[in-house]
Amino acid sequence: MAIEVLRLNHRIARDKRISTHVALTARAFGAGKIYYSGDKDSNLDNSVNKITEKFGGPFKIEHTENGIKLLKEKNNNGFFIVHLTVYGKDFKKYQNKVKNKNMIIVVGGEKVEREFYDIADLNLSVTNQPHSEVSSLAVFLYDVCGYGKFKDGKIKIVGSAKGKILKQI
Amino acid sequence: MAIEVLRLNHRIARDKRISTHVALTARAFGAGKIYYSGDKDSNLDNSVNKITEKFGGPFKIEHTENGIKLLKEKNNNGFFIVHLTVYGKDFKKYQNKVKNKNMIIVVGGEKVEREFYDIADLNLSVTNQPHSEVSSLAVFLYDVCGYGKFKDGKIKIVGSAKGKILKQI
Repeated sequence: MAIEVLRLNHRIARDKRISTHVALTARAFGAGKIYYSGDKDSNLDNSVNKITEKFGGPFKIEHTENGIKLLKEKNNNGFFIVHLTVYGKDFKKYQNKVKNKNMIIVVGGEKVEREFYDIADLNLSVTNQPHSEVSSLAVFLYDVCGYGKFKDGKIKIVGSAKGKILKQI
Repeated sequence: MAIEVLRLNHRIARDKRISTHVALTARAFGAGKIYYSGDKDSNLDNSVNKITEKFGGPFKIEHTENGIKLLKEKNNNGFFIVHLTVYGKDFKKYQNKVKNKNMIIVVGGEKVEREFYDIADLNLSVTNQPHSEVSSLAVFLYDVCGYGKFKDGKIKIVGSAKGKILKQI
């Protein structure tokens, strides 16, 4: 099962930290790749790649000039397209439709163009209350994939009651 | 059951959007209040209060000068303190300990001081991979509370397959 993410309309000035959080969330909860449209941002790429080198992969980040063209290609390659939006149907009612599928998950962006709603196989919400593309992606991926699995990292964190335990691998 | 959140060390320049996402995530998944330490930020307060006025409450946002003092007061009032941190124990193993409790959930901040690890009843992780305070809070709250319930809003979004449906209440 391949899970990928497309983050729309990244703006360097406005979105630097939010897009990093979207990418790390994608990685932590089992996606293998994130694409982003909007501004090409080598700081974003570097931040995410550093985490992957340190804590393991596989996880790729790639800029795309054209989100719709990418989604058409993915669709031709058998990927199911889920667009997470506050306006969509509650994802909890569609769990059976999205499990065990190769899938690309689209998240906004301040404003998402109409054509993304049209190209999506499903427009799904994680609550119809406004919150965050980071939290929508997290809850959705956690539900579909659980935690990601990683290899080839240099260090790992070992969960502890009070401390900070980092272990060389 | 009262659920509240404390967001640590807000910095206006760096965190404006992340802290807004943390607050809206708290609201969407059932918390009744968010406190934040660090910079007092009227833009943050206003952004969050506008969403509450429009989409419903109850939800409060309040700046605190001293996070530890606040947690001590909450503790004296019977609140259980959960600190979400990548270094903590996997939250999935502690679900029984946190359900149906009055609880304040602490999230960082770039750097979280030692004393927050010490005062917490539990230091819990949502994966031991680095990702985001927004996604940790979202997954944890979604698991503990599910979706929030709201009243006194002016509009609501009705989930739909392809459209954007806003309904006056």
